[in-house]
Amino acid sequence: MRAYDIIHKKRDGKKLSNQEIEFLIKGYTKGEIPDYQMSAWAMAVFFQGMDKEETAKLTEAMAKSGDNIDLSSIKGIKVDKHSTGGVGDTTTLVLAPLVAACGAPVAKMSGRGLGHTGGTIDKLESIAGFSTALSMDKFIDSVNQNKVAIAGQTGNLAPADKKLYALRDVTATVDSIPLIASSIMSKKIASGADAIVLDVKTGNGAFMKSYEGAVKLAKTMVEIGQEVGRNTIAIVSDMDQPLGWAVGNALEVKEAIDTLQGEGPHDLTELCLTLGTQMLLLAEVANSTEEAREMLERAISDGSGLDKLKELITNQGGNPEVVDNPNLLPQAKYSLEVKAPRGGYVQRIEAEEVGISAMILGAGRETKESEIDLAVGLTLAKKVGDQLTEGETIATLYYNDKTKVKEAKEILLKAYQIGNTKPELNPLIYEIID
Amino acid sequence: MRAYDIIHKKRDGKKLSNQEIEFLIKGYTKGEIPDYQMSAWAMAVFFQGMDKEETAKLTEAMAKSGDNIDLSSIKGIKVDKHSTGGVGDTTTLVLAPLVAACGAPVAKMSGRGLGHTGGTIDKLESIAGFSTALSMDKFIDSVNQNKVAIAGQTGNLAPADKKLYALRDVTATVDSIPLIASSIMSKKIASGADAIVLDVKTGNGAFMKSYEGAVKLAKTMVEIGQEVGRNTIAIVSDMDQPLGWAVGNALEVKEAIDTLQGEGPHDLTELCLTLGTQMLLLAEVANSTEEAREMLERAISDGSGLDKLKELITNQGGNPEVVDNPNLLPQAKYSLEVKAPRGGYVQRIEAEEVGISAMILGAGRETKESEIDLAVGLTLAKKVGDQLTEGETIATLYYNDKTKVKEAKEILLKAYQIGNTKPELNPLIYEIID
Repeated sequence: MRAYDIIHKKRDGKKLSNQEIEFLIKGYTKGEIPDYQMSAWAMAVFFQGMDKEETAKLTEAMAKSGDNIDLSSIKGIKVDKHSTGGVGDTTTLVLAPLVAACGAPVAKMSGRGLGHTGGTIDKLESIAGFSTALSMDKFIDSVNQNKVAIAGQTGNLAPADKKLYALRDVTATVDSIPLIASSIMSKKIASGADAIVLDVKTGNGAFMKSYEGAVKLAKTMVEIGQEVGRNTIAIVSDMDQPLGWAVGNALEVKEAIDTLQGEGPHDLTELCLTLGTQMLLLAEVANSTEEAREMLERAISDGSGLDKLKELITNQGGNPEVVDNPNLLPQAKYSLEVKAPRGGYVQRIEAEEVGISAMILGAGRETKESEIDLAVGLTLAKKVGDQLTEGETIATLYYNDKTKVKEAKEILLKAYQIGNTKPELNPLIYEIID
Repeated sequence: MRAYDIIHKKRDGKKLSNQEIEFLIKGYTKGEIPDYQMSAWAMAVFFQGMDKEETAKLTEAMAKSGDNIDLSSIKGIKVDKHSTGGVGDTTTLVLAPLVAACGAPVAKMSGRGLGHTGGTIDKLESIAGFSTALSMDKFIDSVNQNKVAIAGQTGNLAPADKKLYALRDVTATVDSIPLIASSIMSKKIASGADAIVLDVKTGNGAFMKSYEGAVKLAKTMVEIGQEVGRNTIAIVSDMDQPLGWAVGNALEVKEAIDTLQGEGPHDLTELCLTLGTQMLLLAEVANSTEEAREMLERAISDGSGLDKLKELITNQGGNPEVVDNPNLLPQAKYSLEVKAPRGGYVQRIEAEEVGISAMILGAGRETKESEIDLAVGLTLAKKVGDQLTEGETIATLYYNDKTKVKEAKEILLKAYQIGNTKPELNPLIYEIID
């Protein structure tokens, strides 16, 4: 078998066999197949696509390329959740304790973020003492005892994907649905999930800007799940404006606490209930959508979700008092209220611009080496459809570095479009694909 | 400017600017742009193509990437000829002296062959003493004095093309008309030709198997010529069966001598007259097709073409006696007549198979390192349309290595398809594109 023939075959639109896909991924991981052949192959896939069997095989081959985490000693069905990323997405911090409080085991491995704000691991580090560096034994024990643990990704998960993604990133071959889908799913599979709930975002603040692209990506990942025997459900949700009010690490932790107290933003709460419902169904701790949703709502109203968060924090060495007193989280030295330049209705909030504004304040990483300031970020006071008068506060910036605030404010102001009439609102949840 | 953006732009079907193409080729030649970006770009070009301006700019950028030979001190318009390669193609050995005898300067740079037989340089080395390693001064002086010289390629001609071609060869991105066309034309332009006559072959023994592909390639190269200010004419000719009778180095030299004596195979003679006509027109030594053809026919009938070959051989240190006594050329120790397994008409001769048969006998290189045996090869006694009886000789194999002859004979027999009815013949010249 030769890489040349595999590239040629895909170039001509033919279907690759399981053996060919395995040969390619194994050879590439070992360094036997050079980058220049792999990038030509990726470009051929960009144009010719892959069918569901090829995509599933590619996913499996990449999942098998490194460590495979064995969660079988955790009782119950382990459901993982993955979001394709957006601005102000705090769902994991709400969902992990909430779903655990309902009785489903949550063994969550998360990463740091390269984007507008940090990843779940960064956010959790704004809780004093909280450690995500758990040994595998401690991680598994924690889930068996408390139903929930959140650990940083360890080991060598899907190195083929890591290598291929880095190559695609510099060869304009990222935007291929089968390649995106297999990249995401390979890591979830290697992480040991029995079932997977996906939150595929669409809109200007999402990786997949177009609705059609998001639906196609969601369907492709659900198909991969079917092919590899991991029950998978995908939700296509709106990311045309930021989710919730807060963008920033400690600010999002506070927002997660608010949400578990039933006082969170409507959109974040609704999305968590939707995703949580699917997680409880896949974990087989609820029998119907209605039952699952009731369980989650009860875990909010009776405080058991919030208690679970405290348990999680305590178990991982953090100070659980932050839950009752969020002022213990890192606080920025300064704040600035951004005022509406005119009255009317908010027509649009460019999510990506809001994210950039927060990143400029120090909430996110511009490069892998950037240091995050956990305290800084912004909160939105007005969302799409809200009415406002000239001079009313639309957002508050929280910052430590005075040299950055002017630029951040200008970008934030540009992100808001204000008009005279009340706009039609996007639905929050477009579709559930299973 | 970034290579990433250029790949992305081409991937999305957009036209690259002159600056972008130059940036890409300069950066790649210098090693600043890595192979993995270049192969992704080549695959994007495979799918999205390039328009005539992009193709011309790519050609120019590759031509400029290394040495540019200055032939301006040679009087007259220097017309170069290029063939896309086939089996038994001896045209250069006939055309160079013939066209020179008609008064057009022929400053020919040739290469060695990687294929069924050697290249022009290999063939000429079957003439004892003949040297193609000429200094540039000697080369130019020879053309000014004798109207003709043939030298091996020296210097660093179009290194960008060399590097890119090697990469395309291992990434399944060879079969792209703009990339093939720019590769050929960049070398011709760097070689200093004022005008170019192209012989684009089509059929099973050609690089371009399909007629449509050959026409498209021919048109693309003529367009490049127009864009870069080098008058270019292309002929699309048949390579569905081998050209002439001989396949092998010394055997083809003998066939060239026969042709200059007016005793060559009909197809080779006709192709040389057609190509030579276009060369004389472009060199402006003839005013019409009729005049040019008459001049060439006269140079055969009055022996001036043959005399010019002797002059060429003498001037480059070879023994001109081979012209009158071809037995002085290397002779194979053994020969074997291949007999017709049945009577009828020759329906088809798979040119590629005939070439492989000759290569097995030692006439061509399987790899760059292979040594050529200049004496060996084969001659065909029957061509498509010829009638034959069972047991009649269809070809003769000339060989030195007895272990190879059985396989060569079997392949040759398989190349011949014999049927009951006289088949329709392909035209030799399909089209002239200018």
